[in-house]
Formats: sequence, C-alpha cells, structure tokens
Amino acid sequence: MLVRNLLGSRYKETPKDCVIASHALMMKGGYIKYMSAGSYSLFAPTKRITNKVEKIIREEMDRVGGQEVMFPVVMPATIWEESGRYSSIGSEMARFTDRNNAKMVLGMTHEEAAVHLARDIAASYTDFPFMIYQIQTKFRDEPRARGGLIRVREFTMKDAYSFHTTQEDLESYYDKCFTAYERIFKRAGAKNVVAVKSDSGMMGGKISHEFMLLTEIGEDTLAICSECDYKANLEVADCITHEIESQVEELVEVATPNVKTIEGLKRVLHVDPTRMCKAVVYQENATDDYIVVFIRGDLEVNETKLRNYLKTEVHPASGVSEDSGIVAGFIGPVGFNGKAKVVFDKSLMGIESFVCGANKADAHFKGMNISRDVGNVEYVEVAKAYNGGICPVCGKPTITLKRGVEIGNIFQLGKKYTESMNMTYVDSDGERKHPIMGCYGIGVGRLVATICEEQHDDYGPIWPISIAPWEVEICCLQSGDEGVKAVSDGLYKELTDLGVEVLYDDRDVRAGSMFADADLFGVPVRAVVSRKTCDRGIVEVSLRNKTFKGEVSMQTAGQDILKIVNDLKAEYNV
Amino acid sequence: MLVRNLLGSRYKETPKDCVIASHALMMKGGYIKYMSAGSYSLFAPTKRITNKVEKIIREEMDRVGGQEVMFPVVMPATIWEESGRYSSIGSEMARFTDRNNAKMVLGMTHEEAAVHLARDIAASYTDFPFMIYQIQTKFRDEPRARGGLIRVREFTMKDAYSFHTTQEDLESYYDKCFTAYERIFKRAGAKNVVAVKSDSGMMGGKISHEFMLLTEIGEDTLAICSECDYKANLEVADCITHEIESQVEELVEVATPNVKTIEGLKRVLHVDPTRMCKAVVYQENATDDYIVVFIRGDLEVNETKLRNYLKTEVHPASGVSEDSGIVAGFIGPVGFNGKAKVVFDKSLMGIESFVCGANKADAHFKGMNISRDVGNVEYVEVAKAYNGGICPVCGKPTITLKRGVEIGNIFQLGKKYTESMNMTYVDSDGERKHPIMGCYGIGVGRLVATICEEQHDDYGPIWPISIAPWEVEICCLQSGDEGVKAVSDGLYKELTDLGVEVLYDDRDVRAGSMFADADLFGVPVRAVVSRKTCDRGIVEVSLRNKTFKGEVSMQTAGQDILKIVNDLKAEYNV
Repeated sequence: MLVRNLLGSRYKETPKDCVIASHALMMKGGYIKYMSAGSYSLFAPTKRITNKVEKIIREEMDRVGGQEVMFPVVMPATIWEESGRYSSIGSEMARFTDRNNAKMVLGMTHEEAAVHLARDIAASYTDFPFMIYQIQTKFRDEPRARGGLIRVREFTMKDAYSFHTTQEDLESYYDKCFTAYERIFKRAGAKNVVAVKSDSGMMGGKISHEFMLLTEIGEDTLAICSECDYKANLEVADCITHEIESQVEELVEVATPNVKTIEGLKRVLHVDPTRMCKAVVYQENATDDYIVVFIRGDLEVNETKLRNYLKTEVHPASGVSEDSGIVAGFIGPVGFNGKAKVVFDKSLMGIESFVCGANKADAHFKGMNISRDVGNVEYVEVAKAYNGGICPVCGKPTITLKRGVEIGNIFQLGKKYTESMNMTYVDSDGERKHPIMGCYGIGVGRLVATICEEQHDDYGPIWPISIAPWEVEICCLQSGDEGVKAVSDGLYKELTDLGVEVLYDDRDVRAGSMFADADLFGVPVRAVVSRKTCDRGIVEVSLRNKTFKGEVSMQTAGQDILKIVNDLKAEYNV
Repeated sequence: MLVRNLLGSRYKETPKDCVIASHALMMKGGYIKYMSAGSYSLFAPTKRITNKVEKIIREEMDRVGGQEVMFPVVMPATIWEESGRYSSIGSEMARFTDRNNAKMVLGMTHEEAAVHLARDIAASYTDFPFMIYQIQTKFRDEPRARGGLIRVREFTMKDAYSFHTTQEDLESYYDKCFTAYERIFKRAGAKNVVAVKSDSGMMGGKISHEFMLLTEIGEDTLAICSECDYKANLEVADCITHEIESQVEELVEVATPNVKTIEGLKRVLHVDPTRMCKAVVYQENATDDYIVVFIRGDLEVNETKLRNYLKTEVHPASGVSEDSGIVAGFIGPVGFNGKAKVVFDKSLMGIESFVCGANKADAHFKGMNISRDVGNVEYVEVAKAYNGGICPVCGKPTITLKRGVEIGNIFQLGKKYTESMNMTYVDSDGERKHPIMGCYGIGVGRLVATICEEQHDDYGPIWPISIAPWEVEICCLQSGDEGVKAVSDGLYKELTDLGVEVLYDDRDVRAGSMFADADLFGVPVRAVVSRKTCDRGIVEVSLRNKTFKGEVSMQTAGQDILKIVNDLKAEYNV
C-alpha cells in the first residue's frame, strides 16, 4: 500500500477531547473517525489490525473445537422475552418496532440466539459438547462511552457459547478456553494481562473470569496478591481485615455537635476509624426503600456485593426523608428504628468496642459492643478489599489494588438460558435434561485500543507485528531522485513478492514529516532509502520499538528484512 | 472437522414453506436457521462458505486499489438528514431513539457514512481518486422477505465507494470495478451471470448496472438481445415496437355494453390489441391524484419509467372515485376531461387509427386518430419491453425476457451525496469542487443462495470448490472396523496436514444415510473408505457434480486427492 493512496490524515496536534493516549494517538494517526457517541468508523489501518486480531481469535477458537456461526444483529424481542432479559435489561439494550409492529432488539450479547440455534438440534447427549462462536457487530447503548475504542456503543465482538451435559465437562472446557484466551492475548501482543475472578452480572451463572490488561487508565480495580496467584475484580474480591485490638468498654453517650464524618470523629474523639462503626445509606432502585449498611469506619461498601446479597439493584441515597426516622450523620446500630433494612458487614465482627452514631442529632456512643448492645446480628461481607488487606488464599497482608481494562471474559453460565428457553436433550439414562452452558467474549476494538495504550510512545503506537497494519514501512526520502526511487520501488516490489506486508511512503515530503507519520503508523520494521544510503550501498533498518537500528546491504535488503520480519513474527506465533 | 461434532441436522423432508430449491436445500442441509422474517442464523458450513466468498471479494477489491474500512451499523439520523434520505426513504429503514433521545438509523447502505469518513480528509485533488469498502451487516426492513437467503432483512454486504475529480476518471474506475465484479462472480463459481443496465432507484445517479444470475426463480425480469450484447433490467429496458400497418379512418362511436377489457374488445370488435389505445390508471402515492396512461393495447406500463418521468412514487389505482370524471373501463383520449394527469406512451406514435374508450359507459370509439381527434400530444416512453421486441442496439426483433436474481450492482452516483453533504476539495485550478462518486455492492448471502439455486441436484447443493464449506469429504463406511477406521483416520490426517479442508464422517450410520448427508453438504470431492476398498487397497474418489468417479491407490490417496483438489481450485483461481 502506498501512503499517498491511503485515506486518512495524520495530525500534529492532539485533539482536545482525548484524555487517554490510545484515543489521542488513534485520532492523530488516522485510525478512527468519530461518528456519534461511542461510535467510530475505522480507517484502513485499523481494519487491517482488527482483521489480524480476528484471524488469531478464529485460529484459537477453532483449535479448541469451536465452530464459527453467525447470528443476526437484529433479533425479535420474543427470544429475549423467553429468557426474561427483555425486561431485566434496561436502556442499554436498543429496541425498535419493525414495519409489522414486531418488537426487535439490537444484539448486545447472543446467549438467546445461541440457544435458539441449538435447541431443536442437539437432542441427544451424544450431540454434546459443542462450542459455537461468531465475530460480529454488537450495539450497547452505553451511557459512559469514552476513550475512543476503549468503551463504545457499537463494537465488534467475538462471542462463543459452549454446551455441556455435565458440570465437570463445562469446567474442563472452561479451562481450555481460559488457556485459549491466554494464547490469543499473547499472540496479539498484549503484555500485562491477568485473569481475575469476576461478578457475573447480567449474564447469570456463578464462576466467571475477566481478562484484564493492567493499565492506569483502566476503569476496573483489581485486587491482586503480590505473594500468590490470587487475583479478583474488586467487585468480588474478598475483604479480609486485619485483627483490631479492642477491649470491652462501657457504653457512653458523647456530645458530638455537627460532627458527621469519620474524619471529624477521629479529630474530636481521638479514635482510629478501625474502631468506628460507620453507617452508609443506600436505596433500592425499584422502591426507594432505605438500606443502612454498618461497616468498619476505615472501609468502603462494595456495591456489587451488596446488590448480590440483597438480590436487587441499589444506589447510594442522596439524602434521607424526614419521616424515615434516620438521623443522617448520627446513625448507629444501638436503638436504631429508622424505616430501613439493616446490614452488618463482617468487618465489625470480633471488635469489642466501637464509636457509633446515637440515632439523634449531635450525639455518638463510645464503647458500643454489638452483641451486648444490639444483640445477635447476621454479618455479611459487603466491604471492598483494600491495599494491604489479607489475601484469602495465602493469608498474607499482600493485597494490592491495580487498575485494568477488561479485554475478555468467560462465564460458567449454568442452565439459566437452557431452562428459561426450554432447551433439552435426552441423556444416556433416558431422562430429559437441560444442558449446561459457558460463554466467552472478547471485544476486538477494545483489545486493539488497550494494546495501543500499553505499547506506545509520545509519537505513536508501537504495534506488535502480529497485529500491525503492515509489517514493514519503506521511507523513500528523496523520491524525486530517480536512483533512490528505483531502489525503493525495487525493495517494495521484492518484499511484497516475498509476501511481506509493506507500507510504502514515496511522497515528496520532508524527512521529519515522513518519520512523524511513520511513528503514527507504528509499523514494527522501518527501512529508509535515501541518496546517502544509496551512495553507501545500504538500506537503514530500524525497529519502531527502538530495540534495533542498523544497516543491511542494498543487494540483500529484501532477504535481510524478510528474516527480521519472520523472527519477530515467530515470537507471536503468527 | 468431524461430522459428529458439527452442530446442525440434516433432514429428509423438505420444509413446507420452502418454494425454491436453494431455500429448501439450505434448510434441509443444516445451513441456516430461521429466526424471524427475513432473518437467519448461519450454521458453520454457511459461515465457512461466506468467509470464502468474502475472501475472494477482498482480494478483488484490493486488486483494484480498494481500502477496507468499517462503518457503524447504527448511525445518527443527522448524516441521513444531510443527504435528504432520512425523509425520502420509507419504512424499509429501521429507526430508533437512543437513551439520549437521539434519532438513530440502522444502515441499509453507507453512502452517507462514506462521505462522512472522507469529507474532512480528502481536501486536495491530489488525494483522489480512492476507493473504500467494507464487508458488514446491513438491515433493510424489507416487506417481501422470501426464499431463504435470497431476499432477507438482515444480510452481509460488501459495499464500496469511490471518489473522483472527473467524470472520465469515475467512468474508467467504474469499468475496472465492472471487471472486478466479473472476476468475483467467476471465482465464486457463479455461471450464468449477466450485467444489465439498471434503474438507479433510491441511490441516485445516472448510469448503473446490475449483475444478474439468470434463474427462473429470479424476481427481476431482464430484456436480453439474443443477437447482440444488449442487456437491461426490464425496469429500464427500451421498448421499441414493431411498425403497425394502419390507415386513417373515420371516428365512429360504437356501443360496447359491459366490455371493459382488451380481450373483450378484441372479441366484440375483431380488432387486434396493437390497434387499441388502452388506458391504465395510477395514483400518486403522496396525493392520491390520478394519472391516466394511454398505451398500445398489447403493451404494459413500466412503473419504473412512469415514476422516473413523473418524478414521484405511483401505484396502480384500485378504483376511481365518482367525482373524478373518469369512466373506468371506457377511458379514451378523445374528449377526456377526468381529474387526472394524462400520459401518452410512445407506442401510440405513428398509428393512424385506434379503438379507444369514449369516456362514457358502454361506449368506445373506432377510427380514433390522435393528431386529428386529440391534437398535439407529448409522447413519452413508459411501456415495458416485450419478448420479440426490437433491440435498441442492433435493431433486430430479438429481445427475449429472462428472469434473474440481482447479486451485485454498481452505480455512477455523481455528486448527489458530495453536494448534499458538502464534501469539497480544492482542484488543480484552485477552485473548490464536489467530488464525483461511484458505489458498488454485493450481497454475500444472496450470492451464496443463488449459486446453490443454480448448482444443485435433487439431493443437495453442488458447491463450487472455491466457496465449498470443505474441499473433501471422507466417508468412513465401517468406522467400527479398526482397519477401515485406521485408513480413514490416516487419510484425514494426511489431507489436513497437506492443507486440504476435510470434512470427516466417521459416524456409525448406514451408508445410505451417510451419503444422503454428504449430498447435502455438497462437498466437491468425496473419498469413500470401506472394508471393500481396503481389501482392494484403494480409496473410491468421486466428484459431487458427477463428472468423475474413480479409484486411487490407498498408498497414494493423499497426494492423488490433493492433485484433484488443486486442479479444481485452479479453475476458479483460488
């Protein structure tokens, strides 16, 4: 491909609305064009990249026995009504009515379609297991589209669905997919990828993992043990607290005029927050009913755990009503009779005396002992894990929190969809049963953007050769010079004939401008031909990641560059 | 791939609702699954076929300098409002409102998106020409979905858009794409493909061609000259009539009680329909205003031509209102004063006397002469071409009408979109101008279905090897026999290692059942291994299209079959 024929502009300035590097570089480099919130057109370099990512994904899905299929993007609401998700999913699912007044939805995931495809066909236990996958467009009416291709509304996704007759078979296949995902990310060139336990969310099912690319710009927080293999999304990470020394004390009411915060209490009462019983107020989304969570003063509530415990959606209360009987800022478990459901976090267990609110304005208790002053309460874990917390696996205080972007996920779905949509098979014992499902997703564009986020410098992306839009860029510095042009043209033809993917810049522009563009293209291998190199009988070769810069003979340049390319590709097994 | 691992059932019975062979065979063979009107999921064999079709398309688009890009499926209404098509396209465009109340549409074509992508970038004449294309999902809320993948609502389409600074450049590129399309269809194995001149319809522009696969099940009718190269869609085919001998006669009113049809008049008055002036009543869609078309009695009105002449959408009137002054069944041009626009078809020119309605009940005129009895009228061509009509190119009476399915189309769009969406560039003369566009479409699924329609027998599709889901099917007739199984397994491994795509059936089923399935899979090369073949030291090899059946030595089977495969592939240049 000739740069002068390529549609797309490269810019010097960073667009103002880009706050992360990959977004800025992909805009500056002519990779993507904004069309509407969370929706981009892809220029040719990006399509070349995504085609390569999709090829790697296909190879690895096929290797674990996957069959590529294709589901419709637009689906009738009826199959989503069968699963119950037509009503349980909110406005992130786009809906419309077709010309015959039938309700339609845009696919944001395809469990329903997968069951629809398989349910009349896989009728005997001998038809199992199998895995079907597709690579296709999805639309999620995401409220927080941001960061270029990191979080969009329309995206290309590989989604796979496996069907099994036993939990053991699902688990063993799940492990295979886990390994396949590791291979995919490795071959695509992503470096800092970790798999963490995750919350299954709207997908249902119990066990699930997210593959996270660790980066400061990540929206997710991960709890990772620095001593063992434990890794979990903060949403589901266990919160195991250090033991806090405390002794039984007398319950005493103290005046705390206008002191409504943990910080304020610490200042006034000289008590460490680990010895305070904090109250956090939530409301149920559906009813606005209040929920008061009592939790140790230094910890935060994990809303995912709270939602999963309550089995309903909740949000932090923005205030409390007069008639609720809740005295904001002074809530405590002793004598609490506000109109609210009360939840005690596990972090309060085993501590003998707390500071807590006295349920009246400007007053707190000291020396509160839950079993003595409140009675028997049920403790549940709804606290967020924290830096330095105890690892639930190795028991050491080595939990560290890191940021990551989710680039893939795998779920053990169980029978949620096969039961609701009545997919059955006849088992070897003659009984009719529901198969067990797994599902496995990778967002193609997001993977590309996070790799750019992970591997770039100030001047542009540094694409791994396995997904780079081209493998080699030839910069012809004086295309007006017939001799130089002839050498460049010859090298372009030779490499192309050898099967190397070459981007060829023979524009009549200054070297600085050409190199700036080349940095933005991020092509791994660069070959520079100029009057000077021709006079010396060489071609300058360098790597975009700056690990190599050298010269090859003009006579052997094609073969020499081919070898460099092949060596690089071998690292990624492409 | 092992047949026993493949998701999909093959059926003996033809589904009741299938009226065409490709639909029936693709349902029976486990290729597609109906989800909703005009919407199917594709099983693995179909996806394998479409992947190959897409690869051929990509190669040929790249060969003519195309750059693969990707546009969103969901687009903001705003860009469609810019082009004017948000209002000019009716209910076939699916629309919805997103969570922010923004109007969105589902892409049924992407001219707007192509201009949106290119308009800020291609700013100088030196940036032209270029062509961008994508292969992606489209949704058209088609009222007449039918025939499996032949006419659907959701489909995968290759759509390409070229941009030029001169009409000459567009035309020369258009010719290149024409040739690329011929190569694509040839390589995909479609046999009876013709390119015909077509109506540009909602796309705009003047010159356009449709690539039609000739088949009796086609919805389109084509006028094809059997003597020269003339080919046109009936919608735009010139209607050149034979000369009709006639003499001037006196205008005489005759009583024709209850005779309202051409057939009736012929019976009663013994006049040939070529000597009748028939009236056909239409209504404008927008206003319901009447249009009366006068046309020679043996001809039919071409609604596309009528619409293009009137520049408005029309439909046949289901009746006429009392106050219209139109006397249905007795309409004629003499003394007509109904409330209607009147159109005279060119077929009436040069004929000296007609039978026509007398504009009162139960009466017709004989001897009507238009210039004498009506005056000077404007003749326009709104008649359909007919079998045996005159070819506009060679002048012979050799027009024949054939049926075809449109599998691709190319349009010279002109400036319709670049003007309405204000895409400009600075030309070499320093002037700001609008580029000229071409666009080029191929429906992937429809192409596959029409090839199936063209190439099948009673037992299944006969896929050309260039797009076949697999190249070779191995039928192991006695998989319970260890020796037979070992030979089959070995052949499967050998061929797979040689890079041949093999479908392997080692199920424990009867030979008849296995062969019936194999016929439905339609794999070009079949290798049969059984106890009998093993005893003789051979493998039976046959072609699905029945042009070859023979034996190869067990020792050389792998290499022999590879050679057969490669010879077949060479025919399609894949």
